Amino acid sequence: MSILVVGSVAFDSVETPFGQVEEVLGGSGTFFSASASFFTEVKLVAVVGEDFPPEHLEFLRQRKVDLAGLQTAPGRTFRWKGRYGFDLNEAHTLDTQLNVFESFSPRLPAGYEDSEFVFLANIDPELQLEVLQQVRHPRLIACDTMNFWISGKREALLRTLARVDALVINEAEVRQLAGEPGLVKAARAVLAMGPKTLIVKRGEYGVLMFTEHSTFAAPAFPLEEVFDPTGAGDTFAGGLIGHLAATRNLTEAGLRKAIVFGSVMASFTVEDFSLNRLRTVSWADIEARYRTVKLLTDFEGLD
Amino acid sequence: MSILVVGSVAFDSVETPFGQVEEVLGGSGTFFSASASFFTEVKLVAVVGEDFPPEHLEFLRQRKVDLAGLQTAPGRTFRWKGRYGFDLNEAHTLDTQLNVFESFSPRLPAGYEDSEFVFLANIDPELQLEVLQQVRHPRLIACDTMNFWISGKREALLRTLARVDALVINEAEVRQLAGEPGLVKAARAVLAMGPKTLIVKRGEYGVLMFTEHSTFAAPAFPLEEVFDPTGAGDTFAGGLIGHLAATRNLTEAGLRKAIVFGSVMASFTVEDFSLNRLRTVSWADIEARYRTVKLLTDFEGLD
Repeated sequence: MSILVVGSVAFDSVETPFGQVEEVLGGSGTFFSASASFFTEVKLVAVVGEDFPPEHLEFLRQRKVDLAGLQTAPGRTFRWKGRYGFDLNEAHTLDTQLNVFESFSPRLPAGYEDSEFVFLANIDPELQLEVLQQVRHPRLIACDTMNFWISGKREALLRTLARVDALVINEAEVRQLAGEPGLVKAARAVLAMGPKTLIVKRGEYGVLMFTEHSTFAAPAFPLEEVFDPTGAGDTFAGGLIGHLAATRNLTEAGLRKAIVFGSVMASFTVEDFSLNRLRTVSWADIEARYRTVKLLTDFEGLD
Repeated sequence: MSILVVGSVAFDSVETPFGQVEEVLGGSGTFFSASASFFTEVKLVAVVGEDFPPEHLEFLRQRKVDLAGLQTAPGRTFRWKGRYGFDLNEAHTLDTQLNVFESFSPRLPAGYEDSEFVFLANIDPELQLEVLQQVRHPRLIACDTMNFWISGKREALLRTLARVDALVINEAEVRQLAGEPGLVKAARAVLAMGPKTLIVKRGEYGVLMFTEHSTFAAPAFPLEEVFDPTGAGDTFAGGLIGHLAATRNLTEAGLRKAIVFGSVMASFTVEDFSLNRLRTVSWADIEARYRTVKLLTDFEGLD
């Protein structure tokens, strides 16, 4: 079962304590698509400028990402520049150039409106709503957002949240959205806004999932070297929704396994700049880390 | 199998966003003993001043804590004053009065030197070494420490670490001790200092255990209300060592279960000031939370 994703395709310039890169492939839609493509087919709706090089399109095509919804607009591609200190949990944005994203209006190509699995990556909630108006019988709608929209477009965001099944955001965003410092209480408040499932990204501390009746905690895969966290959250969402779409298993058990697969995918992305690691990772690598997470968390099956 | 613990018995004055208390029962040895006493007998070696009220001693005796090693010295009991903001992960120390602790020299009463399970709570590493010189055939020695000793008494601390089996410290302390920002690398460096097992406390993010050949991640019990984190780390260690001493199971499987029991014990302590919650918790409460943690982490047993 294929996934429809709407998000950004971008050039990232990133500085970490371990190195720096200029204008490499990035963007929420890109990381999500590449990650989800290990599990199922992906339809990417996004916009790039005339400066976007064909080799990046070729990489996505090789990963079986359907690019019929990728518009090319006059002007320059979206650019983001950021820096990380030794505390890799937090990015410091140095520059954002929306460029062609400024006038982006997501239009679904023929056939896309029947998509059953939809991921609205972190973009203006009004654009997220535009997409939802075009899909017909979604089985699962998930979305991401960020502090900028929580404070600046709260009303549109709440309208989006009322229509999504799952919200995938980071811990500080849960607290900000709910206006409540306690995470468990904040999670309850966010669930009351619409989503039946709240998935909280905590960086190196893993993931928490909240539903009305359950809580699930998954650790992050413990890495010797974290090189660049850019794209980790979108890669996580790609593995998560990818696994859900591939298995069509939306039970609690299915969601939990999908979260671990998402977490495993993110563990590869952070090992190198850009999508470099996702270019080389194999299905065997993914399965090996999934089994490692199982061993990592087991406290009753070892006797 | 009983446990020997050396640590502080103190009066705490604590301010959190939810309330404040003056001169309530606290101290690393106290929290550890009360917690471990749910699993096995505890021998507490510590010092109090002449101002220490009999009702606190009575509480510890009721919990079957052996107080033969609790000295009463001329002067005032150790006092600590601290404040927490909404980020309950970090205490801001406002005042520390060592008082009788300043000239404390731990002396083991007859019979204590044969203790098989020994916990050296967070005190001067030179005092920790004095205790180790008095025990004869310990089966498991575990210890805690803090930033103050890591920077100020590094050499004595390294001598202690060379003799302990397990080190139980928080995440920032692991990084500080190793001089390395990456936690996994820092953990390897700390294991090279002597302990075969490193247990990393991460507050609301749970616990990581590292040995040469394994890693284990346990989540914190997700609480609606965290009231006062004071004593959480010592309560955790009490449940951990308590369970190990009660079961005498020091295998990887035994350590993992003990960590979860420690984590469960800490989840009670933080629900109220001082040791108030440990006064009322029942074994049934403890077992129920242990089962909840099992459900919280399971991603393959639900099908």
